[in-house]
Amino acid sequence: MAFKVGLLGLGTVGGGVAQILLDAKGRSPLLQDVKLHRVGVRSLDKPRSVDVPEALLTTDLEGIVTDPDVDIVVEVIGGLEPARSLMLQAIAHGKHVVTANKAAIARFGPELFDAAKAKGVYIMLEAAVGGGIPIVQPLKQSLGGDRLNALLGIVNGTTNYILSRMAAEGADFAAVLADAQALGYAEADPTADVDGLDAADKIAILASLAFGGRVNREQVVCEGIRQVSATDIAYAQKLGFVIKLLAIAARQPGTDGQDALSLRVHPTLVPLGHPLARVDGAYNAIFVEGEPIGQVMFFGPGAGAGPTASAVVSDILNVAGSMQGRDRDGAAPLHPLLSCSHHDFFPIAPAEDLHSRFFVRFLTQDMPGVIGRIGTCFGDRGVSLESLVQTEVKGDEAQVVVVTHTVRQGDFQAAIAAIEQDACIRKVDSILRVL
Amino acid sequence: MAFKVGLLGLGTVGGGVAQILLDAKGRSPLLQDVKLHRVGVRSLDKPRSVDVPEALLTTDLEGIVTDPDVDIVVEVIGGLEPARSLMLQAIAHGKHVVTANKAAIARFGPELFDAAKAKGVYIMLEAAVGGGIPIVQPLKQSLGGDRLNALLGIVNGTTNYILSRMAAEGADFAAVLADAQALGYAEADPTADVDGLDAADKIAILASLAFGGRVNREQVVCEGIRQVSATDIAYAQKLGFVIKLLAIAARQPGTDGQDALSLRVHPTLVPLGHPLARVDGAYNAIFVEGEPIGQVMFFGPGAGAGPTASAVVSDILNVAGSMQGRDRDGAAPLHPLLSCSHHDFFPIAPAEDLHSRFFVRFLTQDMPGVIGRIGTCFGDRGVSLESLVQTEVKGDEAQVVVVTHTVRQGDFQAAIAAIEQDACIRKVDSILRVL
Repeated sequence: MAFKVGLLGLGTVGGGVAQILLDAKGRSPLLQDVKLHRVGVRSLDKPRSVDVPEALLTTDLEGIVTDPDVDIVVEVIGGLEPARSLMLQAIAHGKHVVTANKAAIARFGPELFDAAKAKGVYIMLEAAVGGGIPIVQPLKQSLGGDRLNALLGIVNGTTNYILSRMAAEGADFAAVLADAQALGYAEADPTADVDGLDAADKIAILASLAFGGRVNREQVVCEGIRQVSATDIAYAQKLGFVIKLLAIAARQPGTDGQDALSLRVHPTLVPLGHPLARVDGAYNAIFVEGEPIGQVMFFGPGAGAGPTASAVVSDILNVAGSMQGRDRDGAAPLHPLLSCSHHDFFPIAPAEDLHSRFFVRFLTQDMPGVIGRIGTCFGDRGVSLESLVQTEVKGDEAQVVVVTHTVRQGDFQAAIAAIEQDACIRKVDSILRVL
Repeated sequence: MAFKVGLLGLGTVGGGVAQILLDAKGRSPLLQDVKLHRVGVRSLDKPRSVDVPEALLTTDLEGIVTDPDVDIVVEVIGGLEPARSLMLQAIAHGKHVVTANKAAIARFGPELFDAAKAKGVYIMLEAAVGGGIPIVQPLKQSLGGDRLNALLGIVNGTTNYILSRMAAEGADFAAVLADAQALGYAEADPTADVDGLDAADKIAILASLAFGGRVNREQVVCEGIRQVSATDIAYAQKLGFVIKLLAIAARQPGTDGQDALSLRVHPTLVPLGHPLARVDGAYNAIFVEGEPIGQVMFFGPGAGAGPTASAVVSDILNVAGSMQGRDRDGAAPLHPLLSCSHHDFFPIAPAEDLHSRFFVRFLTQDMPGVIGRIGTCFGDRGVSLESLVQTEVKGDEAQVVVVTHTVRQGDFQAAIAAIEQDACIRKVDSILRVL
């Protein structure tokens, strides 16, 4: 019995999905049982890159999500609405949902998953994070024996492209951004990418999968890359680091003895020997640390029609496979590893309790005793230093670069506040976290 | 209803598996439904690292694989026999099988999978390749929408450790091997690792999963790393390469218009910019190329109790999840993505039809015209050269290093045979393939 797909959207990703479904040869044999049944588009007579039979096309998206013949709805129109309403409607009509929509899942996940659970259908979202990289599936199905401690991702291709070029060319952010926009690697309004919002959506989703609890997207602490300068990158290189925008979810001991989750997106100094340090250009990678597995990393293309379509189709196949031989209208339970089982929100660690290494760059007066005064400000607040280097003297000003040991963020901030009060400090130029 | 595990073997990996099953907190909730039911060991009173209740232990392995209460048999005793017979017996008694036994699967795969299919049970083998790295699961469940073209793996930790140290220290193979043996990174009899046999077992398994056909282990062309010299590594570095033992399965056009599979294990010059070039020490990585996904890589610990146990437990969870809610004695079909569906052997490309770049190092007489004669030998057989460098002259001898473009292996070998006949060639020192 064919498994019927209702596809919402025939843009870049939707076109890629249709292309795979219409040309199954050489792919999984299970694709023979999957049929593209209807395709919802905004306009019927737009030219398209993929040759979809005209009879399948419709502008009536509601007609697709309520069509009794459709088994699974694939949502690749993106945006918050009408994507959310269409997914809810599809679920209400007993259809499984596959989506690439990180923004909608990060915001409306609890509502969507509650609805899916009530109706006994799957919501699948491999394509929402990391483009073609299999990561959602491995988190659900391959790492169940592990207690995960941390998940670190380079999950935004645009910012990784910009940072890679800044490092290679010694160029400043604004210049590379402008060029990336001209080349189509960054959007005209780059906010979602360069301010880390897209990465924050993705880490909210990944954290929920990795740590088995719901995550409130608003609790992700988010810093983008606008303030990263060519000077920071150059100093980081001298110290053996490369700067990457990391999305991080890590378990840390909470104040009440319970573990809490630290959830954040920020530019980070990554040691050159770390596997994430070599992930350049538009590639993405997700690095996972757990017990007893140790460290694993998933690397691949973070975006693009083909890779994202590959992820969408793998979700379709998993649902089709899991439903095969089950009574479609019966009460067969869902596969527990594919469906969402958690309901409680994971406690989030307050930002000041975060433990991290820090990199700070100061401009100081060039006079005896400055280093001692800086060192004392840190020491008095329990912030121990790994290195403190006075690197450049220009006129009566000196550049000082400090890397701390792992310290509590609250203590570090108190030390910085004290340092900023010191008359011999001209300016705290930049503060970055160090992996 | 608890899902009951019969564990065969309580060595390194078995101990790791027991440890996870007996301490489920913080791992997948599905582990609550999985119970360690019996554990087969060789001797009851051996001291063990893991605290298994004595009542579970038995030396009667046959009693476990025929126990009507056991749902799934986990085979981690290794070796060919009695592992094969015990797995067949377990299958005959309707039990699912999870194994970490690459040697047995690579050799007896068809027999085991036929038996499993006849009885409607799963054989799962995530732990057989790449230790803790999720790779079998992603190949089965995440890349079904793709047409895979090539799979390249660093799948043997011992040889990767030896080659990494040779490169870092400029040391020769024999010295590093001896040290690796002293440190426990290589076995007293290192044949299976350094001659590429272990990697060949693994690529046979991976090729079968990636290309959807059965693979005859004997058809894997296999070269180990004994002949790789410090001199080769040094020249490779100068040319921008690092030498890795790669296990390769790649689709190539066959002579009859049908695709054939090229299956091989050999030391390979990998360009420094390639993601596999950075995989050092005992780490493993599997690099997959397909359409439309592009390039993805899976990286992690290739061996060890913890990582391998993590892979075994993920298999147990997938079988338990897939059986949940199904009538255990009923005729419910298996999940098509988890079970093995192919029966035909994939046609294997003859070695001489392989297309590859080659690296050759000669010792020649230092006299005018040698370069021209070498160049002509290659050119006459249709082998075009990327670079030809005379690098060192000692007395009346010169060292010549050649890198070819991608050429047919048969043509390349004919050229080498002709060159060896030339009176001014003292010796062909080494021939390696180039990625």
